[in-house]
Amino acid sequence: MGRREKEFVREITSQEADYSQWYLDVVLKAQLMDYSPVKGCMVIRPYGFALWENIQQGLDRRIKDTGHKNAYFPLFIPESLLQKEAEHVEGFAPEVAWVTHGGSEKLAERLVVRPTSETIICEMYSRWIQSWRDLPVLINQWCNVVRWEKVTRPFLRTSEFLWQEGHTAHRNEEEAEAETLLMLDVYRDFAENDLAVPVIPGRKTENEKFAGALRTYTIEALMSDGKALQAGTSHNLGEHFARVFDITYLDKDGTLKYVWQTSWGASTRLIGAVIMVHGDDRGLALPPKIAPVQAVLVPIAPKQARETVLRRAQALFSELKEAGVRLELDDREEYSAGWKFNEWEMKGVPLRIELGPRDLESGQAVLVRRDTGEKVTAPLAGLGGKVAALLLEIQANMLEKARRFREENTSCTDDYGEFKRIIEERRGLIVSHWCGDSECELAVKEETKATIRCLPFRPEGPPGRCLRCGSQSGTVAYFARAY
Amino acid sequence: MGRREKEFVREITSQEADYSQWYLDVVLKAQLMDYSPVKGCMVIRPYGFALWENIQQGLDRRIKDTGHKNAYFPLFIPESLLQKEAEHVEGFAPEVAWVTHGGSEKLAERLVVRPTSETIICEMYSRWIQSWRDLPVLINQWCNVVRWEKVTRPFLRTSEFLWQEGHTAHRNEEEAEAETLLMLDVYRDFAENDLAVPVIPGRKTENEKFAGALRTYTIEALMSDGKALQAGTSHNLGEHFARVFDITYLDKDGTLKYVWQTSWGASTRLIGAVIMVHGDDRGLALPPKIAPVQAVLVPIAPKQARETVLRRAQALFSELKEAGVRLELDDREEYSAGWKFNEWEMKGVPLRIELGPRDLESGQAVLVRRDTGEKVTAPLAGLGGKVAALLLEIQANMLEKARRFREENTSCTDDYGEFKRIIEERRGLIVSHWCGDSECELAVKEETKATIRCLPFRPEGPPGRCLRCGSQSGTVAYFARAY
Repeated sequence: MGRREKEFVREITSQEADYSQWYLDVVLKAQLMDYSPVKGCMVIRPYGFALWENIQQGLDRRIKDTGHKNAYFPLFIPESLLQKEAEHVEGFAPEVAWVTHGGSEKLAERLVVRPTSETIICEMYSRWIQSWRDLPVLINQWCNVVRWEKVTRPFLRTSEFLWQEGHTAHRNEEEAEAETLLMLDVYRDFAENDLAVPVIPGRKTENEKFAGALRTYTIEALMSDGKALQAGTSHNLGEHFARVFDITYLDKDGTLKYVWQTSWGASTRLIGAVIMVHGDDRGLALPPKIAPVQAVLVPIAPKQARETVLRRAQALFSELKEAGVRLELDDREEYSAGWKFNEWEMKGVPLRIELGPRDLESGQAVLVRRDTGEKVTAPLAGLGGKVAALLLEIQANMLEKARRFREENTSCTDDYGEFKRIIEERRGLIVSHWCGDSECELAVKEETKATIRCLPFRPEGPPGRCLRCGSQSGTVAYFARAY
Repeated sequence: MGRREKEFVREITSQEADYSQWYLDVVLKAQLMDYSPVKGCMVIRPYGFALWENIQQGLDRRIKDTGHKNAYFPLFIPESLLQKEAEHVEGFAPEVAWVTHGGSEKLAERLVVRPTSETIICEMYSRWIQSWRDLPVLINQWCNVVRWEKVTRPFLRTSEFLWQEGHTAHRNEEEAEAETLLMLDVYRDFAENDLAVPVIPGRKTENEKFAGALRTYTIEALMSDGKALQAGTSHNLGEHFARVFDITYLDKDGTLKYVWQTSWGASTRLIGAVIMVHGDDRGLALPPKIAPVQAVLVPIAPKQARETVLRRAQALFSELKEAGVRLELDDREEYSAGWKFNEWEMKGVPLRIELGPRDLESGQAVLVRRDTGEKVTAPLAGLGGKVAALLLEIQANMLEKARRFREENTSCTDDYGEFKRIIEERRGLIVSHWCGDSECELAVKEETKATIRCLPFRPEGPPGRCLRCGSQSGTVAYFARAY
């Protein structure tokens, strides 16, 4: 290993030394983002944005496949609209950005930069919906939103972030609830199959639900430092917004009824989840389905063989591109092969293909997996098929590995002493019985910094005693410290 | 024609009666947009947004094919950054929205909601660019921008709009100029081949150039009311921004140099161009390449034959979908066939496929073109190929038709009296000689409301006399009243 390579590796903090610093090192070093001159707002650099585009694509396809259509609503929301739903304004007003002037004129009414779009969308739905024939309304929006955060963290919590927000209106509770759960499952499916991030779907407690919702559902993922991350939420809004925005429809039976609504969102936060579930001390590790670069081809040649190897590498590059692999050819002369290996590992490229003069002689290439570090040789003839198969294997293995990690870091206990010990020593998810009382939930949070991440749909095992108060309970909750 | 159908047609104003009202009727009636509770900001409804998604796709592909990558920069720009380039701030400050408060706190420095992103991007480029090895930087961004407009018009001029803005940095003037012209040609190619909107590429005068640019290029389209529309611009920014943002690089020769920059943008305005170039008194007419629905299949069946026809229609629907046609099957029972025809014509669907019991008997379908109104029958066997071919033909014909219209509405004169008469009586484009003096340009604008749309790259014909002052000139300009 040459001097430059050692320098390269040394530049990021190890997870063990300082996980938080490791995260910041990775996002900068892999060129996912950069800090901007605006407090709390980041720049998403091309490599990070390509990752986001792939995430958008996978999610957008699923959103459309379930019958939703995209639209676009204004960035600004008049103050009076935001004020309409009491819980909603209470939840969001403290963290919004206010526009007070247009050009040199003071506005008659202040405008909020949308922190989420329920209110302005409801205003439109009240105009668009008249009859049961207009229902369901199934609309999604990809956009930027702003929440004035005091403490920020790239991708996880920034004052401006990108997301999609779905907003639907239905005839009754049954249809709204079915939609809410359908979209939660879309998120689960996407997280597991595209991001290789296993998640636990469940319901949020009253304390943790969305401001203005009747019920909030969530998918929760476990990061490699043992903290949980909320990766997507789906809300049954009930008739809450319909009543204040007067969204009514004439039903088949001739009576006027309020619609039932849902909203659901997932954001650039998903990038944070991918980094913290799969990353390691060598940097980022990306699942092939969303990796901007699925494989990098590195020709390795001493001067005298350079031309021959390069020519073959270029042919191979075209061949693999043709086969549909998202591929880079790294033929830069100013860097050593070792330096390149480190850089592409830092960027999380799932597969490295090495091609040297001896490989050419024996008609093969060396394939190195980012997920396991495993090296295999494969014949050049039919390499496209081999690469495609390996990428599938890597995708599956990354999910499997993350699932195993989560299982190994999920504890079950109703003993509060043990609970505290686990939270302090190794964190992870803890499945405990909970009496359902908000007081116990808040006390646990106060005393351990762990919150209820969700109430799973299928409680496992027999009834037990509430972790905090000891009263008999059939309700099981996932607790964890969270981002 | 039944009563409902007549009503349907009557609901939009004719172009001749009131072109401006016709436009507003079409955008609402085709459900492209709706007005929002925020002054000057519109809602893009699903049908309009699907159109925008197709436009984005065609443009994004071309932007990527020419080596650019997408990224994302913050929505907010600190006041001090916007102030840096003198001409730029002068051009934009009067029309920006100001954020003054975050939550309940007053901000230490006011933030501008981006009207365009040169300044914040330059700030990042000054950090990212050090060496000639870092150049060129070729970045594009899809986002929303805000310009506080006093008079707005759906898609053409709204306070918030969606667009892409490319921002590149180069080693020298030659490379920057080549990039500026390359992207102008990308816009031209896209406008003509995807939107079927013929455009005239050329340079803007000093008066009309972008605030802060060295040179601005444009593509100009002619609407069917004889007014011109600027459909995309590409700016050579020179070293203007590099000097104030200190974007320097160490060149191969060891000296520190300023980069040369470009920026270029196209927006939701393109939708306005499509509407006004192709639309008619029956509503919207969309070119197949960007139409959200390329063909609509309408089964026409009396009650007794309904089931048979529907079954065959569904099979045909699957078959055409399979063949890659963006298709809708309109099997709604509550509307008459005639009403449906009108609705899909209003929405600009390029091709209607009618299928009735007699068609089934003779093994054929009736195809009706939106662009010409022409009806043809085609055998059901192999209908996919016929439909695909017709869509191509429609696309080509729409461009051809628009080109013919433009030719018929382009006049050449150096006689100011005739110029004024043409502008008053039938508008259109007027090619005239111009001395190059800003005073003449402004006098013409003042006296006729016509502006110089562009100075074409290949002046046609021999030298003549300036339209306004009569002095000898070899420069030809396209004049028109414009949106």
